[in-house]
Amino acid sequence: MDTDTLVEAVRDGDLRLHELEQHADADDAAAARRRLVAAETGADLGTIGEYAFPAAEAESNIENMLGAAQVPMGIVGPIEIDGGSVEGSKRLPLATTEGALVASVNRGCAAIRAAGGATSRVFKNEMTRAPVFRVGDVAEASETAAWVRDNADRLAEAAESTTNHGELRAVTPYVVGDNVFIRFGYETRDAMGMNMATIATEAACELVTDETPAELVALSGNLCTDKKPAAINSVEGRGRTVAADVEIPRELVETYFKTTPEAIAEANTRKNLVGSAKAGSLGFNAHAANTIAAAFLATGQDIAQVVEGSNAITTADVRGDDLYASLTIASLEVGTVGGGTKLPTQSEALDVVGVAGGGDPAGSNADALAEVITTAALAGELSLLGALASNHLASAHQELGR
Amino acid sequence: MDTDTLVEAVRDGDLRLHELEQHADADDAAAARRRLVAAETGADLGTIGEYAFPAAEAESNIENMLGAAQVPMGIVGPIEIDGGSVEGSKRLPLATTEGALVASVNRGCAAIRAAGGATSRVFKNEMTRAPVFRVGDVAEASETAAWVRDNADRLAEAAESTTNHGELRAVTPYVVGDNVFIRFGYETRDAMGMNMATIATEAACELVTDETPAELVALSGNLCTDKKPAAINSVEGRGRTVAADVEIPRELVETYFKTTPEAIAEANTRKNLVGSAKAGSLGFNAHAANTIAAAFLATGQDIAQVVEGSNAITTADVRGDDLYASLTIASLEVGTVGGGTKLPTQSEALDVVGVAGGGDPAGSNADALAEVITTAALAGELSLLGALASNHLASAHQELGR
Amino acid sequence: MDTDTLVEAVRDGDLRLHELEQHADADDAAAARRRLVAAETGADLGTIGEYAFPAAEAESNIENMLGAAQVPMGIVGPIEIDGGSVEGSKRLPLATTEGALVASVNRGCAAIRAAGGATSRVFKNEMTRAPVFRVGDVAEASETAAWVRDNADRLAEAAESTTNHGELRAVTPYVVGDNVFIRFGYETRDAMGMNMATIATEAACELVTDETPAELVALSGNLCTDKKPAAINSVEGRGRTVAADVEIPRELVETYFKTTPEAIAEANTRKNLVGSAKAGSLGFNAHAANTIAAAFLATGQDIAQVVEGSNAITTADVRGDDLYASLTIASLEVGTVGGGTKLPTQSEALDVVGVAGGGDPAGSNADALAEVITTAALAGELSLLGALASNHLASAHQELGR
Amino acid sequence: MDTDTLVEAVRDGDLRLHELEQHADADDAAAARRRLVAAETGADLGTIGEYAFPAAEAESNIENMLGAAQVPMGIVGPIEIDGGSVEGSKRLPLATTEGALVASVNRGCAAIRAAGGATSRVFKNEMTRAPVFRVGDVAEASETAAWVRDNADRLAEAAESTTNHGELRAVTPYVVGDNVFIRFGYETRDAMGMNMATIATEAACELVTDETPAELVALSGNLCTDKKPAAINSVEGRGRTVAADVEIPRELVETYFKTTPEAIAEANTRKNLVGSAKAGSLGFNAHAANTIAAAFLATGQDIAQVVEGSNAITTADVRGDDLYASLTIASLEVGTVGGGTKLPTQSEALDVVGVAGGGDPAGSNADALAEVITTAALAGELSLLGALASNHLASAHQELGR
Repeated sequence: MDTDTLVEAVRDGDLRLHELEQHADADDAAAARRRLVAAETGADLGTIGEYAFPAAEAESNIENMLGAAQVPMGIVGPIEIDGGSVEGSKRLPLATTEGALVASVNRGCAAIRAAGGATSRVFKNEMTRAPVFRVGDVAEASETAAWVRDNADRLAEAAESTTNHGELRAVTPYVVGDNVFIRFGYETRDAMGMNMATIATEAACELVTDETPAELVALSGNLCTDKKPAAINSVEGRGRTVAADVEIPRELVETYFKTTPEAIAEANTRKNLVGSAKAGSLGFNAHAANTIAAAFLATGQDIAQVVEGSNAITTADVRGDDLYASLTIASLEVGTVGGGTKLPTQSEALDVVGVAGGGDPAGSNADALAEVITTAALAGELSLLGALASNHLASAHQELGR
Repeated sequence: MDTDTLVEAVRDGDLRLHELEQHADADDAAAARRRLVAAETGADLGTIGEYAFPAAEAESNIENMLGAAQVPMGIVGPIEIDGGSVEGSKRLPLATTEGALVASVNRGCAAIRAAGGATSRVFKNEMTRAPVFRVGDVAEASETAAWVRDNADRLAEAAESTTNHGELRAVTPYVVGDNVFIRFGYETRDAMGMNMATIATEAACELVTDETPAELVALSGNLCTDKKPAAINSVEGRGRTVAADVEIPRELVETYFKTTPEAIAEANTRKNLVGSAKAGSLGFNAHAANTIAAAFLATGQDIAQVVEGSNAITTADVRGDDLYASLTIASLEVGTVGGGTKLPTQSEALDVVGVAGGGDPAGSNADALAEVITTAALAGELSLLGALASNHLASAHQELGR
Repeated sequence: MDTDTLVEAVRDGDLRLHELEQHADADDAAAARRRLVAAETGADLGTIGEYAFPAAEAESNIENMLGAAQVPMGIVGPIEIDGGSVEGSKRLPLATTEGALVASVNRGCAAIRAAGGATSRVFKNEMTRAPVFRVGDVAEASETAAWVRDNADRLAEAAESTTNHGELRAVTPYVVGDNVFIRFGYETRDAMGMNMATIATEAACELVTDETPAELVALSGNLCTDKKPAAINSVEGRGRTVAADVEIPRELVETYFKTTPEAIAEANTRKNLVGSAKAGSLGFNAHAANTIAAAFLATGQDIAQVVEGSNAITTADVRGDDLYASLTIASLEVGTVGGGTKLPTQSEALDVVGVAGGGDPAGSNADALAEVITTAALAGELSLLGALASNHLASAHQELGR
Repeated sequence: MDTDTLVEAVRDGDLRLHELEQHADADDAAAARRRLVAAETGADLGTIGEYAFPAAEAESNIENMLGAAQVPMGIVGPIEIDGGSVEGSKRLPLATTEGALVASVNRGCAAIRAAGGATSRVFKNEMTRAPVFRVGDVAEASETAAWVRDNADRLAEAAESTTNHGELRAVTPYVVGDNVFIRFGYETRDAMGMNMATIATEAACELVTDETPAELVALSGNLCTDKKPAAINSVEGRGRTVAADVEIPRELVETYFKTTPEAIAEANTRKNLVGSAKAGSLGFNAHAANTIAAAFLATGQDIAQVVEGSNAITTADVRGDDLYASLTIASLEVGTVGGGTKLPTQSEALDVVGVAGGGDPAGSNADALAEVITTAALAGELSLLGALASNHLASAHQELGR
């Protein structure tokens, strides 16, 4: 059908809005949907319709497609990194609507560069999924937990039968009354890996329900924990646990941030450590989520996982005469394959970083992306702490945006 | 300068990458920057360059612009709501790369619609900023806190002198040793209001430092709490505190979710309540952040604030023969003016909801947007709980995306 | 009945173990109960029976009495304090079974004394109770919350009709779906005040259920929060919010703690701030609960409320050449009347501090006790940090106890 | 020296208050100290001096001894348990000053008994200690963490060289910037084990500092986490992780609690699950800390560890026509040897439970004590939930105590 026919068919009640793709190509379907929604709501959807890729390429990412959201993308760098999977100079695209963010991160990158670069490492890499099971009583819970601990090999075999890329690294049972939670942790190479983990876990669950008294209630029991702030992620990590740090000589602190190492260290202690403590927070940082969100959006990550990314701790101390600062992100969930990474602007952005697609060795591209984002976020921390310490946060926003 | 000249000037070291806009119009500057970055990294930035708006319109949102990220946008609804600021049927655009999300939320919307619609209310509306001050000792801290409590009027006067739209609603001092934090809470009408709050607070801080022994250390002391998971937001709220609920007859639960009220209630208790409790979480929901992130991206909100949005509690109980379910978001920070809301695709998306720009009365558009997003997120909760309860989460992902 | 007769009556099934006090005086009843339990379990209860007070005096504190637990009590001090309700030198009894604790706190007290004393202040004083109500939907929740905000005066009148000593200071509604929580905060003078708060709240609840659609589900809805670790207490306080601090010259740090201000500040940052952050903790201190528990036990406080007392933040910084250290306890629940404070050893211990019974003005005795305990706990923090910094924690335990 | 001479020597400045035991027997020293403190403060210390054991027996538990605190002790039970280490009927002494507590727990025990008894199990048993080390940068942190993972055997050998009873079960490194935390988890048999864990960890730390770039900053880095509320304990456990549950027929719920399974389940969901969620709590229970504190005090446990004990989750659901309820305590730290367990009243109380001293097999006495306390705390939960559901909490306190 052509667009007119599609529109007519929906108006006549012969088709429903989400069924258009079954009767037309994806772009025509989206065009028809825009006309229908425009007519219904009075909104003009012109710019939403000016997307720069074939709608069919987004079929695995969206349903009921109208078009695309367009978010301004800027660039920061060069970011100088001595990393575990990246060495040297990197650029990072950031997509955001928050004026001053790109400039702020860039200022931090310049300071890091002048200081000879940051160091970064990935400490842990496990994508998790934690189903919840019902048992009869705590005796059955105890049996089930013991069975899980004794049968890690069989669970791995079952889980790994569903995937060529994933590997079960850890399986841990937790009990609350007649609930048994099993947290499965997977190495997922260059994929963020949540779907892989879900599918593998479903297979493992069958083994559990076959061999123990446990019955599956939900394939995710919130001990994963996906897209919710949770201490289990802050403590044990999810996705990549990754840190970056830098030592910046006093004169560079003064040049780039118009303040002193002491002032930055004091602002960090009072705000990011004591303030977050008083707030009952799981995020002991200034605004790591800002950089993470903008990088996730540019590079095709799952932006709802910015929630876990914000589980980050910034430290800043005077070392000798200089400033030492670090940022450690407990649960940064990134991938360079799958999800939104193949979409056109996202794939180009990954190319800018030099990490599109699968890495060699497998996993090294996602590790590198994690290190680049973490270092950029460290730059953002330094810049905001510097601005607060030299007391011009409000004026920066007044000049650069609103 | 034209693009070639700009490129040359940067290569010759006469201009720096972020200075291009000073010598050319914004689109040419972005084009030159793309050429330079492409040459430096080997990446093709063609699609990033195919943005559908004049670059100059994004000047207050981005620096070092390359172009735009494009994220597929779908649509859900009609969402039937009896709200405090919205009545009747609404569509909501969602931008995401997570396959199955739009379909899932839409299924929930259909069930809500069939059940006669959801109810929604905004309970509180306060944008906060909390500077940290240094004092000499706890005696000075006590004096300062007392002064703050006694001079709320003067603080309001100072803060409000900076804005036509904001109003200081609450000012609360918190002490930790020689740190005094003051949490300022503002009514900010239809703006998300963080910059307004920052600027107003800066003015109030001057009064504090003039009249008390306190010295300002940082304009944000993390008790705000912005873009970090924090209990102070879960408990006291930030931005809008908003809830939606619905009662769905048993037969509709069976029709739409292929399961029973009992199974959904059980999944909710074991996963969202007990599981989140065990995880040390501040988010007692299934995936509210997914819907919030997609709606934020489509409508020009600050996506790093998805972090606070995830402070949400889902309840589900059997009532008589039917299912009662609710979603309460403690800290949903939304606006219909300012920030990214004027960008073209974002503004069109707000038009689809019918809430672009300032509302009448002031604040009602942002309230309405909060109620629509919360109801859509409730739909997403219902749909995922239904899927888990009928045990096809993994297969849904296998069919619709990866 | 005499003891023999009581024992016989229970053995014959004519009396139940908890009914003995109805037929004999309290000491005979306890003696009979000891004989019965000894016979049943084979245990000797001789020392448990050697309590030093008439059993009848404990009737409002215990049921099914066997006798008393005896816990060794030591003493620390003099503690030199410039407080809001205490000035000068105080001794504090501590009851504990942890070897080295009294010695450790005492060492800190000596250092504080040598430094000219600590400063202490109570910042807030509110005992809370937060019932949970059921409403029909979020619209009713909104109505109910609005009614509460508009009727604080009537709620105060109802609550205060039950007490001569309490005053309703704050009443705050919180909504989650069809749950409305109302947190009532009372000034309770020299009483810890939980029972007073419970009784007053029950009266206020009647008004709520009369005037709104809300129905009472439980008189405590866990937003109080009593005897559970909870961020709402860390943030908003419960009972007394109180802090103490001290500045100790470098040479005294070296004399008393065999280490330097820098080493103590570093240990505090890495352990109490960063370590607690990583642990997902609400307690950013070294062992404040130790001192609080021992003081609570000695002075007749409710020892289960040590849970809330542990919501404490220790800071330590180098100031000029010296050490500045503070301890802020968000929720220290103490009283000098009621509860266990009238029992003989407890009352004597309060006399040692000079705060037994009601203060003049009312509340000043409990304030003073809060300041003394907090300063002693600060002393304990300094001493343990000093020990860790000079690395002899394990050896201290090896020498003084196990 | 006799008491008069001791008093004189202190008054003359020849002895200090804490040195008396070096010159007299422990009872005379305490007597002299009471006289001095009485004279200084005007307090009568008569009852504090009437302790029922030789002071010398408390030498490893207290310094600067005055005498003893006496707390009324009652008894609950029989508690009917099908446990992992206990089978049948148990009595449990509780020491408390909170009127109504013993009666309340006892009511729950009666209901459990009538229902045929509770089931209980210990799921995990690990006492932890987590030192914090300083490294140069995140690269060194990565090296150190890798070394720890690769050398668990050598660390175990070093740690276990200090103890005959402890066994290193787990060793996990955590990194935050230039901080490396290593959490050591020990099996400690019938001892609570914190001192054993501290001494063993000190030995292991020497190996770490010898073999890696890490330098020890503090033997405890707060990831242990001892005596602070912390999610790491809620999630991973500390000491015993233990649960108890029971199924109570409807008619017994009505008989014992004057309410219905539905009302108790509703109160539990709204208060213990949703209320605690909203409060930002780590304790999803009604008052488990009450029972734990009273049992800890009676049986010689470390009462400051009630903090960790309060990390407990209560569930209550309607099963068929009956009530199912469970209590799971994540971190219950108990021992039957060491600490305060050998003191006279404490040892007698352990004899009442039948678990004094080392068990056979080793660890079984402490396991049994954990199961008994947890079941008693479950009884307390049921009783309080029942009281709330039938709405007589305030009146219970009015009748039985204040």
